[in-house]
Amino acid sequence: MREYTLDSFFEGHLKVYQHKNGYRFGIDAFILANFVHLKKGETVLELGTGCGIISLILVYKFPQVKRIIGIEIQPSLVSLARKNVKLNKRENLVEIAQVDIKELKEKFPHANFDVVVSNPPYYSLKRGRLNPDTEKAIARHEIKSSLLDIVKTGQYMLKEKGRFYFIYPAFRCEHLFVTLRNYNLEPKRLRFVHPYTKKEANFVLVEAIKGGKEEVKVEFPLIIYEKQAEYTPEVANYYKTTGEK
Amino acid sequence: MREYTLDSFFEGHLKVYQHKNGYRFGIDAFILANFVHLKKGETVLELGTGCGIISLILVYKFPQVKRIIGIEIQPSLVSLARKNVKLNKRENLVEIAQVDIKELKEKFPHANFDVVVSNPPYYSLKRGRLNPDTEKAIARHEIKSSLLDIVKTGQYMLKEKGRFYFIYPAFRCEHLFVTLRNYNLEPKRLRFVHPYTKKEANFVLVEAIKGGKEEVKVEFPLIIYEKQAEYTPEVANYYKTTGEK
Repeated sequence: MREYTLDSFFEGHLKVYQHKNGYRFGIDAFILANFVHLKKGETVLELGTGCGIISLILVYKFPQVKRIIGIEIQPSLVSLARKNVKLNKRENLVEIAQVDIKELKEKFPHANFDVVVSNPPYYSLKRGRLNPDTEKAIARHEIKSSLLDIVKTGQYMLKEKGRFYFIYPAFRCEHLFVTLRNYNLEPKRLRFVHPYTKKEANFVLVEAIKGGKEEVKVEFPLIIYEKQAEYTPEVANYYKTTGEK
Repeated sequence: MREYTLDSFFEGHLKVYQHKNGYRFGIDAFILANFVHLKKGETVLELGTGCGIISLILVYKFPQVKRIIGIEIQPSLVSLARKNVKLNKRENLVEIAQVDIKELKEKFPHANFDVVVSNPPYYSLKRGRLNPDTEKAIARHEIKSSLLDIVKTGQYMLKEKGRFYFIYPAFRCEHLFVTLRNYNLEPKRLRFVHPYTKKEANFVLVEAIKGGKEEVKVEFPLIIYEKQAEYTPEVANYYKTTGEK
């Protein structure tokens, strides 16, 4: 039997089970979810949903979306995500599908989503020691899918002018920018994320438009910590925000 | 007879003539010059030197460089830049050459510079009204040379692992990143420049390495103004810094 933890957010309005040992989401999930803007009636695809945290934050913040489909390849995380959808009573809005991203084209119609969201594996197989825990390793390293697979598939799934949201390590941002351009996804909003003021960025947030024209807004960066273990007001608010009316 | 203005920087250690009407440098020249690091004995090529301001700041800050060659296509600016080199007694370190960037390959040997610096024309011909003043227009719009010409030529002139420094409008940063990748120049340091805290970036500073590996540091951004007409301490310091010992 696997052990679980139960975390509660937004004054108890969102509850999430996670495996005690295995892949556990980080602050990047909250940062990405808070960078995304969704409109009434939109359909959303999340590529690599893990325990479902991002999709669940999104339906909490944007209850007027039509539907979010969260794709996950790992069976252990698929059942966890389904359990979380049920726990939060969001079965009407969030569907979790066990699919390999590389086979998505065969399962869903072309150009059918308004928005794609992904917190993709960050590290190439060449870089660093591979995490020995498979669940973690697959979520973080390009084992089952690479950035290229995710960009290619997401682009195929998106409607023309649809929006693609990513969070990615800042040190690989050139790789992300070049990959997006190769698949006709044009960055429209960029926001770098710095752990502290005056420190180098650790993440970049990107909103790209399928077939958009070349012109990007570089927003003022997000700073995570005011000081050791104390979030800036903006980030602290990510965990408290109440849903849209 | 053209009218001139004479400006003085670094407590009078740098004096610069500019045309009263025509192309006049902006704060971007100081920002770029302060982003560049030069080492003892290095040779530097500046593509599009205008009145010579960036090359002159560089030899002031890094008097141990071997030589800086400033290339300029416009005769009016070439004579102005030469006048400024003479005024500052830097003929031993700075040479101004009147060359069209597209013909540079025929005038200088291949892979002969340690560093290339450029504040290139920012705007494509498609964008915005063209400035009716030709000197300004050539400096700011892609009339005589485009970013592509500058990247291509600079890359050809750089030694392997040589450094290429740019300042470019933030809204076109995707264009810059993709162009660099196409010419095997890999961004190593990025710094965005914001006019005020909490405002969108207006420029991006890039240090790229010829044949470098894919990994970039995104530095904490530079903020220009503390409030209306008052520079932040960092920028105020750009105008005061005394040369390296």
